[in-house]
Amino acid sequence: MNKPVQPQQSRLVADLVDNRLLDFLEGENKKWVEVDNRMAEAVSYLQSVVESGGKRLRASFCYWSWYGAKVTEDPTYEPQDHPEDLSGIVDVCAALELLHTFALIHDDVMDDSNMRRGQTTVHRGQIQRFTEKAWTGESRRFGESIAVLVGNLGHVYSDILMANAPLEARTIWNDLRVELNLGQYLDIRSAAASDLDFETAKQVAWYKSALYTIYHPMQLGFVMSSNTTPGISRSVARFSEPLGRAFQLRDDYLGIFGDAERLGKPIGDDLRDAKPTELMAYALQHADQDQRLILSKVGSADLVESDIAAISEVIRATGAVGYVEQEIESLIVSAERVLDEMPYATVAKQALSSLARYVASRNV
Amino acid sequence: MNKPVQPQQSRLVADLVDNRLLDFLEGENKKWVEVDNRMAEAVSYLQSVVESGGKRLRASFCYWSWYGAKVTEDPTYEPQDHPEDLSGIVDVCAALELLHTFALIHDDVMDDSNMRRGQTTVHRGQIQRFTEKAWTGESRRFGESIAVLVGNLGHVYSDILMANAPLEARTIWNDLRVELNLGQYLDIRSAAASDLDFETAKQVAWYKSALYTIYHPMQLGFVMSSNTTPGISRSVARFSEPLGRAFQLRDDYLGIFGDAERLGKPIGDDLRDAKPTELMAYALQHADQDQRLILSKVGSADLVESDIAAISEVIRATGAVGYVEQEIESLIVSAERVLDEMPYATVAKQALSSLARYVASRNV
Repeated sequence: MNKPVQPQQSRLVADLVDNRLLDFLEGENKKWVEVDNRMAEAVSYLQSVVESGGKRLRASFCYWSWYGAKVTEDPTYEPQDHPEDLSGIVDVCAALELLHTFALIHDDVMDDSNMRRGQTTVHRGQIQRFTEKAWTGESRRFGESIAVLVGNLGHVYSDILMANAPLEARTIWNDLRVELNLGQYLDIRSAAASDLDFETAKQVAWYKSALYTIYHPMQLGFVMSSNTTPGISRSVARFSEPLGRAFQLRDDYLGIFGDAERLGKPIGDDLRDAKPTELMAYALQHADQDQRLILSKVGSADLVESDIAAISEVIRATGAVGYVEQEIESLIVSAERVLDEMPYATVAKQALSSLARYVASRNV
Repeated sequence: MNKPVQPQQSRLVADLVDNRLLDFLEGENKKWVEVDNRMAEAVSYLQSVVESGGKRLRASFCYWSWYGAKVTEDPTYEPQDHPEDLSGIVDVCAALELLHTFALIHDDVMDDSNMRRGQTTVHRGQIQRFTEKAWTGESRRFGESIAVLVGNLGHVYSDILMANAPLEARTIWNDLRVELNLGQYLDIRSAAASDLDFETAKQVAWYKSALYTIYHPMQLGFVMSSNTTPGISRSVARFSEPLGRAFQLRDDYLGIFGDAERLGKPIGDDLRDAKPTELMAYALQHADQDQRLILSKVGSADLVESDIAAISEVIRATGAVGYVEQEIESLIVSAERVLDEMPYATVAKQALSSLARYVASRNV
């Protein structure tokens, strides 16, 4: 596999978004330190997760969709000449990333993950703090409660960044948030109920990846551009569908075959949690009796490294990895075909194409 | 103690709000059943908590503040003659109650409460469901994850009910949500760290009761009225401060001396969790050495009924209950004095006065 680096266009957006988020949170921290040092702690935990980085993919899809629509209407358009427009779109991009931070903090509690972006997760860090201070109560309940609250705070702050956006943008934002929660609900419920079929995997991927990661961010960017060209919304949907599935297929692959150090999180958790993925659905469908016996261990919390290795080997032997790679390639070709026809400025299409390739072939 | 029933004015608002919430959630449920029955489950769990009732105090404070400001400007004003105004304020009231539903669902996870409003809490219900179905994973993690997600869904829906409110109202709404989360953070953190002093108890009461339960709901109602009389905002603040403390003092009293059946939740959890309350701060400050020994058991998760009884007895013996009752009475007198001078229509002042009395003397 080649080693794709994050495209330059994505880093440009990441810088704009990170500056906005860190400024905003620093302001909140200062405000709350004045009130009560203890209350300000919650803001600082959130800052630490935001500072740990991330690919800022949602912000990038949003920004380039906005830019593409803007430049199509006015080929001389330069964002830096329109500071109000720019700060409007950067707020929306920052809101998307802060909402994602909230979702990750809560997901890490739900999956009991230890690491995220190479850093101890919030609930794990709080469990350590509780233990070190020999506080009263149960360390797990404390750590998880604090992480849920820090996540909720991020959720509210993300919404504050959306406060000045027009109603049309806020409506998309609201749909996105409902779908994110219901997609996550289906994910958790399917893992528990061992609903590991293709249909469930595709449904989860649709809500958690296609809509949440690509379609709605791009729709938000488009709506913020005030470009009213008919048909753009439809072509954004047609671009998001294959690309979202490709994103999720790559995510599923990395969750089992990725490099833990590079990903900044441990490998194998997806197998311990029995997440519904197309990769697993394919493996289960194509496994022989012996292979099926090994795959039946998926969902057991006490899988050790050798179990993970054996299960991974079986998944590969069923042809599931080949299937996933082939699907990703053909989905990306479909997405690029839609992109070619989109009425966006060329420079934005190049950025989106490079993002699409990154989404499909990334190793982080 | 007399047995106050919920004032009629509060029931009127509760009916308006409940109808709006149940209609809204039923619409969402129908929409999601079409998509995926499993995803719609999350909506139905939320419906069940909303249907279990509640005092709808926040909605009542909001509504009567709105109505008072409206009628002051136009003594002939009748809400039913202005359906757009009415649906606007009912949406804001419904948003407050749905946000409160979200907060309660999350609080019940954080406190591991079994019952709420006479009904099994969401996470406990989901733990039962998981066990009955013999699903894969850990029942506690599943139940708590689902409850966090159902709460998050309520949070998003509450925000959707605020979507059409003017920016000024949404700004108050955003402040309220930040403060709610940070107040709850301080509560959980102080319980763990055994910060049971007066200052901490008052700080928590200020954020969780005065601001969240009274001040911000009344500010929201005032802003929605478009009445711009100077000074109203200041007098709302002066009314909320003593009343919020009285509300919290009654809450603390009921948490230890209330009637479990009437409250619809068990007694003693506040002692197991060592919540920072003025009641406890007073007791600790006035306890002799023997009493202090008994109070030192507060915060232990395995307190049995006889421990709870012994601790309650000590709290009473220190004079803490007398202190609380006296404080409540004098706070209510202060609140009513402010209310008298408020430039609100008499009928609204009567409603707010009866709400204030109820808040102070309720037994549920």
